[in-house]
Amino acid sequence: MDGGGPSNDDERVRRLPIAGTGKSSAARVLDDWYVACTVKELAAAGSRPYATSLYGVPIVLFRDAEGSVGALLDRCPHRNVPLSDGRVEGSRLRCGYHGWAFDTRGQCREIPTSCKAPEGPARAVQRYATREQDGLIWVYATPDVEPVREPYVFRYVRDPAYHSGCETFEVEGTIHAVAENALDVPHTKFLHSGLFRKSGAGNQIEVVVRRWHDRAEAEFIGEPRPTGIVGRILAPGGGVVTHFDRFVLPSITEVEYRLGERSHIATVSALTPLTDTRTRLTAIISFRLPIPAALVRPALGPIARAIFEQDAVVLERQAETIAAFGGEHFASTEVDVLGPQILRLLRNAERGDRQVVDEPHEHRLVMDV
Amino acid sequence: MDGGGPSNDDERVRRLPIAGTGKSSAARVLDDWYVACTVKELAAAGSRPYATSLYGVPIVLFRDAEGSVGALLDRCPHRNVPLSDGRVEGSRLRCGYHGWAFDTRGQCREIPTSCKAPEGPARAVQRYATREQDGLIWVYATPDVEPVREPYVFRYVRDPAYHSGCETFEVEGTIHAVAENALDVPHTKFLHSGLFRKSGAGNQIEVVVRRWHDRAEAEFIGEPRPTGIVGRILAPGGGVVTHFDRFVLPSITEVEYRLGERSHIATVSALTPLTDTRTRLTAIISFRLPIPAALVRPALGPIARAIFEQDAVVLERQAETIAAFGGEHFASTEVDVLGPQILRLLRNAERGDRQVVDEPHEHRLVMDV
Amino acid sequence: MDGGGPSNDDERVRRLPIAGTGKSSAARVLDDWYVACTVKELAAAGSRPYATSLYGVPIVLFRDAEGSVGALLDRCPHRNVPLSDGRVEGSRLRCGYHGWAFDTRGQCREIPTSCKAPEGPARAVQRYATREQDGLIWVYATPDVEPVREPYVFRYVRDPAYHSGCETFEVEGTIHAVAENALDVPHTKFLHSGLFRKSGAGNQIEVVVRRWHDRAEAEFIGEPRPTGIVGRILAPGGGVVTHFDRFVLPSITEVEYRLGERSHIATVSALTPLTDTRTRLTAIISFRLPIPAALVRPALGPIARAIFEQDAVVLERQAETIAAFGGEHFASTEVDVLGPQILRLLRNAERGDRQVVDEPHEHRLVMDV
Repeated sequence: MDGGGPSNDDERVRRLPIAGTGKSSAARVLDDWYVACTVKELAAAGSRPYATSLYGVPIVLFRDAEGSVGALLDRCPHRNVPLSDGRVEGSRLRCGYHGWAFDTRGQCREIPTSCKAPEGPARAVQRYATREQDGLIWVYATPDVEPVREPYVFRYVRDPAYHSGCETFEVEGTIHAVAENALDVPHTKFLHSGLFRKSGAGNQIEVVVRRWHDRAEAEFIGEPRPTGIVGRILAPGGGVVTHFDRFVLPSITEVEYRLGERSHIATVSALTPLTDTRTRLTAIISFRLPIPAALVRPALGPIARAIFEQDAVVLERQAETIAAFGGEHFASTEVDVLGPQILRLLRNAERGDRQVVDEPHEHRLVMDV
Repeated sequence: MDGGGPSNDDERVRRLPIAGTGKSSAARVLDDWYVACTVKELAAAGSRPYATSLYGVPIVLFRDAEGSVGALLDRCPHRNVPLSDGRVEGSRLRCGYHGWAFDTRGQCREIPTSCKAPEGPARAVQRYATREQDGLIWVYATPDVEPVREPYVFRYVRDPAYHSGCETFEVEGTIHAVAENALDVPHTKFLHSGLFRKSGAGNQIEVVVRRWHDRAEAEFIGEPRPTGIVGRILAPGGGVVTHFDRFVLPSITEVEYRLGERSHIATVSALTPLTDTRTRLTAIISFRLPIPAALVRPALGPIARAIFEQDAVVLERQAETIAAFGGEHFASTEVDVLGPQILRLLRNAERGDRQVVDEPHEHRLVMDV
Repeated sequence: MDGGGPSNDDERVRRLPIAGTGKSSAARVLDDWYVACTVKELAAAGSRPYATSLYGVPIVLFRDAEGSVGALLDRCPHRNVPLSDGRVEGSRLRCGYHGWAFDTRGQCREIPTSCKAPEGPARAVQRYATREQDGLIWVYATPDVEPVREPYVFRYVRDPAYHSGCETFEVEGTIHAVAENALDVPHTKFLHSGLFRKSGAGNQIEVVVRRWHDRAEAEFIGEPRPTGIVGRILAPGGGVVTHFDRFVLPSITEVEYRLGERSHIATVSALTPLTDTRTRLTAIISFRLPIPAALVRPALGPIARAIFEQDAVVLERQAETIAAFGGEHFASTEVDVLGPQILRLLRNAERGDRQVVDEPHEHRLVMDV
């Protein structure tokens, strides 16, 4: 006899009480720009190219002898080894297997051993448009097309009145999950207790939420200075702050705190979808404060990294749980201020819908911070 | 040209001579009780809850301030992080991300930052019925229902004439594979040679196999005392033992040896399906012997663990091989006494069929032990 | 509300610009012989059998007391543990779980504890034909059949005028990818720069490519001695070499260099498809040189291993990239001399088509080496 018994074709008897929903907040906005790396990261690679990915598609970046930055599909069309294993030689990126060499446009310019012309569409690599600005290398997510828009501009980085620093991180989570986390106020009392906000402060404030075709913001009215370290740096003497949280398509988060005219801290992160569920943050913290920058600057990196480490852990656990359950199953409340707005913007943008509207959609609520 | 050649749509030419059967002895008996952990394991977690799973569904257990044990789906309904990453605070389990707090019934009782009532069905967590008895925490495998039966009772643990000890193990293998292994006599001569039985003893004995609606047993008639360490503890002077092996739905194995009225060792294991193919054993060894318990007790744990380690290795190799071949393909003989009986009970129970029959099904065979 | 938003059923908006092709060069030629291991490897296992696989099917080899080599499916028909976990006892391989014992024909000859006859088709294991020749154990890839042909013969190993050494390797990659790599000239200038050929030598030579029903070869006419270490060993004084690269079904690669009558090096590799994408190489290097073998032999192993390590890295990266993209997408040129020929031979052989043709298919090209 066969000890395996009847086969398990009858899935009815095996259905678990908890089924996956199949839902995911992953969204692919392909007609827009993402930060691939910093100019420093590209330079640090030396004669080696820089390997990254967008939505799981491997991409290789290199700077040629003329200073142009090329971004190509990271696969040699000849025998499918990564071009990022090769080397930059003058104006070409050369594959390490058979030595095929490509320019920043993705054209094959040399096939060693062959006596014939190297060019030809079957031998070209898909290339991605690039921009270099604000110390960052941006890549357009659709290959072989002319971009329909330009990358986001970091306002304060260009303003000489501000001091800025850059931190980069990688974390498990969709663009939506990471952006919601970056712009979410309620979790700061628990996850970042002490660092950012303390639990039990108990101040009721008004929040105004606005959504345009390409961005959403939350304005917090009457918010006392946050009670943690960040608040003390911003406003040693306490007071009421002006606080805006903002999401800008396709993947920018802005968190701004102002106290009067003299104190201003803006943390702006450009999120990059390395895969559907893994995200890179390129965070630039810009500030203008009444105390000398030399006193503030050494603390900013460690604080940003400490907060980020806590967020990274919870985002990874969230991603694991969603994967284990086969999908997301979220219950939101009115204090999940921007998460649902971000998802709506991403879904519309994924379908190519960014129709400009005259007036923002607006609603108000009360939050106990 | 494309070096990949024609695509491999024609699966006929690629079919391996050895195909998977797709058969599995995994069975999901959801209307019954399983041991989640010992009372000690739950207490050892302190203010942290205890994380486990049933058939792959993550479950979190915690004891509230009033002493009740709650078992909830291990996923915060808000943003899907594991509740087991949170902390127990008084009568509530609080999620570590946004601080949502739940009682042992799975009701949400607090949503920090929100000024509205926290309750509501979308914010509740699925809860599993629990029982605390015999030093163990039992969980009913279907959430949000009233149990149709009560957990198994360990008879000898409650009998003051017996001494008992508990060991817990985890192993790869379905409930069926682990239960068959726990109740199988033939493998003990090879896998546990020396520890339990020796090869080549060569005694022919009669075996009576009986199956009721919820259990099956094998009675071994005329069996000489086993020749290994276990036998020497049981009956230092030799003799003929009374030996019963039993499986009780949904996942209990009982192995009992008696020598006259004075010597009795019962090893009872409650198996927990952590996933379809990973099983936890909570084994309680109870004994009443003519020699002092203080002499026996120190040896029992090490012997049980030594035997279990050998079983764990072979069960893991079995599970790997079944996975590699895409299913089970078993050839049984008459000396595979209880394995097929267990599978039949599990399959019936999986379909909800435990109809009481008046007379047990019975057959006899001869075995060479 | 459900933060997960609409489900992602609409795959149109989520389609990546780079889709997998689904193409693979994996081919299953089942009616032929592969090297399972060397005689030495089998002997080194002692009383333990030797475990390997063919196209992902686990196979166990053992030599019985009479000296016969058995090759069986590596799964006990009883409870599906690997027979390779058992031991060889006289003329039988005994499973370590319940002690079932099998002969080299796969027949079950003993079932301990049972009082009945052990034989029977349900208790037999599938067996594979074996041959022992040239110090190697060959296995026929289809079980339980009479082979339709005999294994490949290593000519130079049997010729007393030659010295031979054997090296074994494992690498990621299909038989096709590994064979193409082993017989490919253009990559040697880049991947093995210095060891084998140097870049930029710039000699145009003629290549004649011939394909028969069971083999393909490339003859390189007028090739100067290769410039790396290998060339210097072959021909210290330089000169023009005779160079043949050959693929023989199902998976043999031959690389031969001659300089006049006195110098000859042949590297012949038998490739074994452990899985569709993992390949074992059993490489035998045979040589006849004007310098003493004692001087050459110590260098051959290290050089072969150094070259192989470089190939192994690039083949693994190729396999990873093909897997990441969901299939192969190759662009070949005229200097990819044997790769497309090998694929055609493998595809035909996979379909059972090895019809003998009178004249080889032949074409010529010029290559810049």
